[in-house]
This record gives sequence, structure tokens and C-alpha cells, in this order.
Amino acid sequence: MTTQELMARRDRALGTGAPLFYNAPLHIVRGDGVYLYDADGREYVDMYNNVPCVGHANPHVVEAMRRQQSTLNVHSRYLHEGIVEFAERLTALYGPPIESVIVSCSGTEAVEVALRMARVATGKGGIVCTNATYHGNSEAVGKLTRLAAGQNSVHDVRSFPFPEKFRPIVAGATEAELADAYLARLGEAIRSLEESGVGFAGLIVCSILANEGLPDIPSGFMARAAEMVRAAGGLMIADEVQAGYCRTGNWWGYEVSGFRPDIIVTGKPMGNGLPLAATAASKALVDEFRARTRYFNTFASSPLQAAVGMAVLDVIERDGLRQNVATVGAALKKALVARKADCPWIGDVRGHGLFIGIEVVKDDAARTPDQELTVDIVNRLKDKGFLTSNAGVFRNTVKIRPPLVFKSQHAEAFLAAFDEMAFEIRH
Amino acid sequence: MTTQELMARRDRALGTGAPLFYNAPLHIVRGDGVYLYDADGREYVDMYNNVPCVGHANPHVVEAMRRQQSTLNVHSRYLHEGIVEFAERLTALYGPPIESVIVSCSGTEAVEVALRMARVATGKGGIVCTNATYHGNSEAVGKLTRLAAGQNSVHDVRSFPFPEKFRPIVAGATEAELADAYLARLGEAIRSLEESGVGFAGLIVCSILANEGLPDIPSGFMARAAEMVRAAGGLMIADEVQAGYCRTGNWWGYEVSGFRPDIIVTGKPMGNGLPLAATAASKALVDEFRARTRYFNTFASSPLQAAVGMAVLDVIERDGLRQNVATVGAALKKALVARKADCPWIGDVRGHGLFIGIEVVKDDAARTPDQELTVDIVNRLKDKGFLTSNAGVFRNTVKIRPPLVFKSQHAEAFLAAFDEMAFEIRH
Repeated sequence: MTTQELMARRDRALGTGAPLFYNAPLHIVRGDGVYLYDADGREYVDMYNNVPCVGHANPHVVEAMRRQQSTLNVHSRYLHEGIVEFAERLTALYGPPIESVIVSCSGTEAVEVALRMARVATGKGGIVCTNATYHGNSEAVGKLTRLAAGQNSVHDVRSFPFPEKFRPIVAGATEAELADAYLARLGEAIRSLEESGVGFAGLIVCSILANEGLPDIPSGFMARAAEMVRAAGGLMIADEVQAGYCRTGNWWGYEVSGFRPDIIVTGKPMGNGLPLAATAASKALVDEFRARTRYFNTFASSPLQAAVGMAVLDVIERDGLRQNVATVGAALKKALVARKADCPWIGDVRGHGLFIGIEVVKDDAARTPDQELTVDIVNRLKDKGFLTSNAGVFRNTVKIRPPLVFKSQHAEAFLAAFDEMAFEIRH
Repeated sequence: MTTQELMARRDRALGTGAPLFYNAPLHIVRGDGVYLYDADGREYVDMYNNVPCVGHANPHVVEAMRRQQSTLNVHSRYLHEGIVEFAERLTALYGPPIESVIVSCSGTEAVEVALRMARVATGKGGIVCTNATYHGNSEAVGKLTRLAAGQNSVHDVRSFPFPEKFRPIVAGATEAELADAYLARLGEAIRSLEESGVGFAGLIVCSILANEGLPDIPSGFMARAAEMVRAAGGLMIADEVQAGYCRTGNWWGYEVSGFRPDIIVTGKPMGNGLPLAATAASKALVDEFRARTRYFNTFASSPLQAAVGMAVLDVIERDGLRQNVATVGAALKKALVARKADCPWIGDVRGHGLFIGIEVVKDDAARTPDQELTVDIVNRLKDKGFLTSNAGVFRNTVKIRPPLVFKSQHAEAFLAAFDEMAFEIRH
């Protein structure tokens, strides 16, 4: 089948506008570790996909999946050791006071649970988020998507400007003053909910502000935000869907950003492609949520999810992937920062571990976002065999987020392609 | 590990109140076809689970899952033949004008899509459902759960009394009069939304009213309801999560109930345990939804979902499971109806194919629901090796809904156990 034929059939079967990456979409047929292969047999280094965290087609995960599906896969209203063991293993990775977990099938479902848990526990309805976030696609969670700061058109959600140092809300401020300024905006959002009568249930935030473009966060902001949230009677919800599972070289993004959440949402990498997500909290919070909602999820907390979820943890631990991410990620970031001297379009290089954003600008002084050039760069890198994407508020950040099995030799090959690309766009 | 130890660990890891079936919960370790096995090696005939529709641990599904997960499993922003083929195969089963599909991971996610699709297409916000339904557990979908008829406490949802002949809203009416009475209530719900300014976007209904207790629906009601919905500018959404996939001996529940939907939601049985759900509609409706929402779902429309989804369809077709359901289900229902003479507590036997409800009453004339006896019956049947549950508005309906591979010999064994149980509760 030609690409044109496949695209025409896809257009009919999935509807026009089902999202596709790249100017010339890739027809992918096989994956292996960090590699993806297209229908012509061409090899690509996958530097985008966080879901297959232990590598495409990881054999340990495949075997766990096969074994469990050929043994048992039912819902959670029977007793089953696997689902308890997986929940125990997961909560141990967070540590006290997080000790219980509600398992679900997608980040969206897990955020739904988190928001409801906060609302049940506080008796209040209002949620605060940043003004450039995305936490999921349901009606309740979708209300949080890119809601302009201060906007009260949504009765139970307020946003505040996400904290950053690259385009700060106060020019010329010290880092401490900047943190104060963002905290003041957070405080306004909380008060707006309180004054409206909806009340304040909690703040949800990606621990490393991934969809905001991985900004450098003014020092101390996150810990002080968590204090402010609790002082206002709310709960601090960490969205670790992108930030967690060793992505940053730490187990959890909140370690990087220096705060402790009350409720933790995980998702994407948990099942290496099997739909699997979780909302974790203290037992008291989970018990109250269960008592008030009688939550049940047909496909979740299944023996299959448990077996695959444990296999992913096995590989991360056995293969030392957290350390790999820390080492390879730090070296890659350093090498990209060094490219800034020769590439005036690199406005900023940010990130943690194997999650790096290169912000592309038209003008280094004015920091004007250059989305067009970003798209060009992403497509050039793809033509050279390296798959990235563009993200961030202005869609002008090259997003590098490979499987955790991305090694030094892949980083070196990428840097060579990067230099070729940089040479091309300079000439 | 003892059952007590496992329950204590489960209580901590999953939280107190994570739902469990039966007075003495089952500790299940293995499944095979229609059988489940507990930790002591005891065999049970599974007469409850619709998710493993082609049988627990079905080897064709296991092999498809293994093969695909060891080849490729990524998101849908690359071109992939499998996801297109699966979508085409699924939409062909509905037939025109249904030709496009949005794939997701759970019934809840698929209903979220359906509601949003109806709202986007009509430009209106209001949804009508029955007063005893359940369509999912998210905030937007959960608002539909058991909302008392006529209640307008939820600004964008109204319910009407579900149509039934066993406890009709008009005593002594003919069937035609009864259909008129329920249609009048549906009309009131639509008008209430219109008058409130929210407007009417659509009616969502399980095609066979599964959670309402599988009532016999007054003849002609559903087709006339669909007409009324469309005349009011709304869309008819069929929830086929329980009703579809040959459950009734037909491919779709709406065939049994005699109507054509505009939007169709499927879920539970699609992946034999792999999270997989879908919302299907005309291409025009899907296109408009995509254009307006840019919907994307990380885990959905994956090569894994496609491969497993096609393997399930393979087995249903290859093994003639639709015909099996029709034959075995009809015989089982007939045999249960015949038991009514000796069992005064059988108020009614209802259902289609391998989805049968036995309504348990205290008094045949007054039809007073007997939830306590229903629970007793379900637990007695379980002790005899047959797994059912209780459902319906009054939780007084024994719910029989086995995997589609449930055969005549299983039905006969069940009927022998049923007669033993009936003898016991008579004495």
C-alpha cells in the first residue's frame, strides 16, 4: 500500500484531522529499543516517545504480557495477588505518606480521579492550574487546557502564569522577587475561587511543567506553592505523567522541583504501551475517595496491568535506567548548551535528564519565538533519522524525550545530525 | 498467602472499599475459556464476565498481543496499517452511515467523546438519559448516573423514566399507550433542556437498558424515541458497551431494540481484557469533532489495540460465536422461564442472547423487589461453582452474562445447580 493510499483510508476510517507528525508522515512498521523502522526499512532513532520507556518491543515486557494474558486477565472485584503487589511496589517508590493507589487506564482518567479526590477531601470545588498546561482530554480535565490566567469564565477552575525565568512576568527582578511575583498570582487565583463561593480544592501542576516548555522555575517556587496551597486548605496534586518514572534522572519530577505532593498522578510510561495509569495518595485520602464515589474501572487494576507494570519496573531497576538517564541526559544537555555559541536561533536549552527542550527564537535579545524554524528543524532532524517534535507555549521548543534506554552512542549520533542540520539552516 | 492476609494488604494498597464480589471474596488465579480457577484449584463457570468475550486466556488473542507488542506499539501520530484496518473492520460491522471511528481506552472515555461529539455537532449542551443508568465514571459522564427523572439539579442533563413493562408508569395501559407515556416523559426532558437555554444535544441510552435491569421495552418505543430525538435536532447515542459484540445474539443491541443510532459507543468486550473502546459515527460527525477538539489519546488507536481488536473479531467470526449466543441463550432463557412455576420468587426472566436477568421478588403479585434473597442466590450459585452477580434498579436481578463461548453443556450444568439452589431456598 502506498503512503497516499494509506492516508486516504485513514482519513475515512479515523476521520479527517486525526493528528499526524511531520510534513511527510512516517509509516512506521517496527520498533526495537530506541529504534523505529518505516515501511521502507529505514531506521530512525526515537527521541520523542516516553511511553515505550524501557524500549520498543522490550522482550521482558512482551513475555510478562504474554504470560499474564495466557493465565488470567479479569477485573479487580476478585482478589488477586498481582494487583496488590504492583500497587505496593508503586507506592513504595513514592514513599510515605503516599501509600494507596487508584489504578486506571489513562492519564486523563487518573487526573479525573485526582481532581475528584481533592474535591471530596476538601469539600470545595475549585482547582488551580497553570495558564499553559494540558492534563487530559475529558470534559472536566480539558477545562484546564491553556486557560488564560485570571480568566474566570470556567466557574471551578482558575489559572496563574506558569513560573519561568526565560520570559519572566517581572523584568529585571531577582530570582527571589520573581518567585514572589508568581506566588502572588497563585494566591490571586486561590482567592478568586474562594471569593466566588466555589472554594479551593487544590493545585494541579506537572512537576517539571512539561507542556509549558520545561521552563527553569524560580528557585523555591514549588515548595512555597505547596505551602501556600496547604495553608489555604487545598491539596497539592503532582502530574507525573510526563515527569515521573526516571524521566529526569530522578524517580519523580517533584524531587527535581523540590516539593512534596499530596496526590500523585502517573501514566504514560507505566505499561510500556499498555494503557495503565494511577492516582496515589495517603490511605486516608484514597479511603475517603472510595467511600464517597464507589469508584470502579472495568479494565483497571487488572492482572494484565499489574504484570506488565511490574515488568517495566523490573527493567528500569535491573538495567540501571535511572542512572543512565541522569548520565546521558546531563551530557546531552551540556553538549546542546555548548551549541548555543554557533546557533543564534537557540534561545534556551532547558530540561532534566532525558527530557530536554531547545527553545528556538528569531532574535536572541528579544527572544521572539520562531515556530516556523522549529517545525523546519524537527523535519530536518527526522529526515536525518532522528525523531523529535515541537512543543511549548509557542510551539517553538524542540522536544527531546527518548525512551529511557537511549544511550551515549545515540546521543553522539544525534549531535552529529544536529550539527549537520545547524550547518544547513545557517547556509 | 492466606485470603485474610491478601485482603489486609489489598485494603492498604488499594484503599478500603475497593469493590469485591461475594460474601466470601474469590481469590482467582487462572482462567481458561468459560472457566475461572481459585487459589485452591477450584473450578468456576464464569457467567458474569463480558470482557473476556472470546474466553479467558484465548490463545489466538494472546498470540496476536504477543506478536504485536514484540513488533511495534506506539501512538497514532504515525501512519500504521493495523489501526486503519481495525477501524475499517469495525465500522463495516455497523454499516452505513457509520463509517468513521474515534478509538479510546475505556467506555468512559468513549462516552466522553460521544457526548462531546453530539454537543459539537448540535451546538447545544443538554443530554437526556434514563433515570437508572450508568455510562461511566468521569465527572461529565458520572452526572448521568441514576439521576432522578425530571430532576434539573444538573444543568445540562435530564433523565426520564426508563421504558419497561414490568413496573410500568401507567397501570393497566396497553403496550401502545405505555410507549406513548414514556415518549411523553422523554419529550418533557427534551423540552426542559430547551426551555432552560442549554438546548438539546442528544439522548444517550444503552440499546438494551442493561443497567436498568434489561427490561422488556414497550414495542416501538426505541424507534419512536430516535425519531423524536432527531425531530428535536438532537442525536441518538447508542451505548453498546454491554449490548454490542454479539452479546444479544445480534451484532448490536440496537438491532434487538429496533432503532438506528447516530453515534455508537463500544467498549468492554473489544479487546478481551486489553483496554479498548470506540465511538463511531458518520464521517461528517467525526470530522467535525476532530476539527473542533483536536482530540488525541496517547494509548488509543495503537497497533496493539488494533491487533488485539482484530484477533477478537477473528475468533467471533471463525467460531460462529454470534450464532452460539443466539442458540444457547434462547435455550437457557426458555429453561429459566419454565422454572417460574416452581419458584414464586422469580418475578420475571428477561434478556436477549447470553444476557439474561432474573428479577427476584418477595411477592409475585406486588412484585416487591427482594434484594436480600438475590444476594443469597448469587452467593449460593457461586458456592456451587457458577459466578453471577446482582444488578438492576433494586439490585434484585440475577445478572447472567457469560463469555460468548458459553456452550449448551455449561448451561445445562448451571440449570442443575440452579435447581439445587431453588430446592435449598424452598426448604
